[in-house]
Amino acid sequence: MHTALTRTLGIRHPIIQGGMQWIGRAELVAAVSNAGALGTLTALTQPTPEALIDEIARVRTLTDKPFAVNLTFLPTLKPVPYEAYRDAIISCGVRIVETAGNNPSAHMPALKAAGITVIHKCTTARHALKAQQIGVDMVSIDGFECAGHTGEEDIPGLILIPAAVAKLSIPVIASGGFGDGKGLVAALALGAEGINMGTRFMCTQESPAHINIKEAIVKNAETDTALILRSLRNSSRVARTQLAQSIIDMEKGGATIQEIGPKVAGAKGRAVYEEGDIEGGIWTVGMVQGLIHDIPTCAQLVQRIVDEAEHIIAQRLTRLIDSKG
Amino acid sequence: MHTALTRTLGIRHPIIQGGMQWIGRAELVAAVSNAGALGTLTALTQPTPEALIDEIARVRTLTDKPFAVNLTFLPTLKPVPYEAYRDAIISCGVRIVETAGNNPSAHMPALKAAGITVIHKCTTARHALKAQQIGVDMVSIDGFECAGHTGEEDIPGLILIPAAVAKLSIPVIASGGFGDGKGLVAALALGAEGINMGTRFMCTQESPAHINIKEAIVKNAETDTALILRSLRNSSRVARTQLAQSIIDMEKGGATIQEIGPKVAGAKGRAVYEEGDIEGGIWTVGMVQGLIHDIPTCAQLVQRIVDEAEHIIAQRLTRLIDSKG
Repeated sequence: MHTALTRTLGIRHPIIQGGMQWIGRAELVAAVSNAGALGTLTALTQPTPEALIDEIARVRTLTDKPFAVNLTFLPTLKPVPYEAYRDAIISCGVRIVETAGNNPSAHMPALKAAGITVIHKCTTARHALKAQQIGVDMVSIDGFECAGHTGEEDIPGLILIPAAVAKLSIPVIASGGFGDGKGLVAALALGAEGINMGTRFMCTQESPAHINIKEAIVKNAETDTALILRSLRNSSRVARTQLAQSIIDMEKGGATIQEIGPKVAGAKGRAVYEEGDIEGGIWTVGMVQGLIHDIPTCAQLVQRIVDEAEHIIAQRLTRLIDSKG
Repeated sequence: MHTALTRTLGIRHPIIQGGMQWIGRAELVAAVSNAGALGTLTALTQPTPEALIDEIARVRTLTDKPFAVNLTFLPTLKPVPYEAYRDAIISCGVRIVETAGNNPSAHMPALKAAGITVIHKCTTARHALKAQQIGVDMVSIDGFECAGHTGEEDIPGLILIPAAVAKLSIPVIASGGFGDGKGLVAALALGAEGINMGTRFMCTQESPAHINIKEAIVKNAETDTALILRSLRNSSRVARTQLAQSIIDMEKGGATIQEIGPKVAGAKGRAVYEEGDIEGGIWTVGMVQGLIHDIPTCAQLVQRIVDEAEHIIAQRLTRLIDSKG
């Protein structure tokens, strides 16, 4: 299945594993790329730019296929040396970078001078248009269904994808809510050139997430997510854990960013992703968990999605129009 | 394009114009049915069961094609004679009824005894399963994008449609967020047997909505809707008018149902839909308004959607899989 996405990135299938803090490490990235999709390393999961250089080298020992590095610009409690991470990516000869969060314009000259293909992820058609104007090569548009930062406008993919495609001339990648071949065909029908999946790849054999997280994703329904930090206009879709519910209750009670911020920051990371304390932690997950029922390898998953998508197109949809009259 | 929906209902295209208070009158219903889709009269738009009988007769002077009648069970300020409306529908020999709002179980024996095909509209997979259990023939599942009653779980169609299809054995109709051929193909790919459109049909030549409403839909973006009555757990997606914003502000201030209810009830209806006071009124509209750019006839609209859908399947999607390798 070839689209502008597969041709531009040199990948076999129009499927991207998007950046995920704590999850986008070498083993998962290589497994996704070896499956013919695009794996994405998450730069800020590495403690230093030097560690990122080592992790990129580790990906290359595991795959010779294209992969990307994600660099997310968000407000953080302590300053992040973004330029140093960016320069580490460039120095390693990485060919594809996914940016997210704030507008990446300050980094575009360096990235483009290095010949890097830049995919910017955003949550509104307005931001997508802005990204095109500053020279990104593709946009990954994240619907309200998505895990993590949803933005504040709450526009689901069914509307957001065609709205973005209509406004842009560069390729659009559909993100948020995708996990199977049905979704891939829907995205392509809506005008996207492929899909970006986070939660679905988090729930694979090669994902470094703790088994408790994977089993929770399999068990949970689409209704078992929650939006935290909405009161701070920094909404994030996470699993509806005890801690997430307590943070929402704090927000309803009028708590400030000084009260909420440290509680959230302290609840992410090692304890939940590596040690599996899922109820006592904050972990991002998309509504698509309601459509996830197993923990396959990345190769099984990608092949299954492509097979299902091709079957839907060649059988179900084609027969609908053949039988007219 | 034939699906379980077209075969069961005896219609040409897998497209339904869903029930819309104030809008679902004979002229629009007949225009939709004459276009090969399914028009739906809204029972409670008529002041009495007797008036509904007259309106059904009026539809029949305008079309000999199948049409439906919507009967919505919602909490209202004054009691509604639902049984009398239902019996009026049955006495007229209507073949298809769309129910919405509360569980229609009290009315199922009478409707099924009359051989009527019942389509129940709901906003969660759980309610869809319940509807199947009480014997409805099809479910119309309304995503978070939709106009009017969204429910409180906020699951968009991209997730809700396949989740419902996976749980049910009866046909699922995708509702909320649909307005063009791209959406129709997406819905079919996600497993639905067709689409239900409200806002898109409200913005046609034959729609009785005031021209000010139609022009506002054309002008507005997907971000120009608002959810009112969320604080009362009776969320309704409406145009973001001055009055809608003032009601949301009242809700933020902790206003009660006694304070808000009459303000909303008094702001709907004639003044807005017939006289065009759109800023001073409350009128339901879906996010799909961001994808609506014209005011076609129903015949032009339906044909365009089907043509676009067939083109996407036969050209874009089929070529993607032909060009693999």
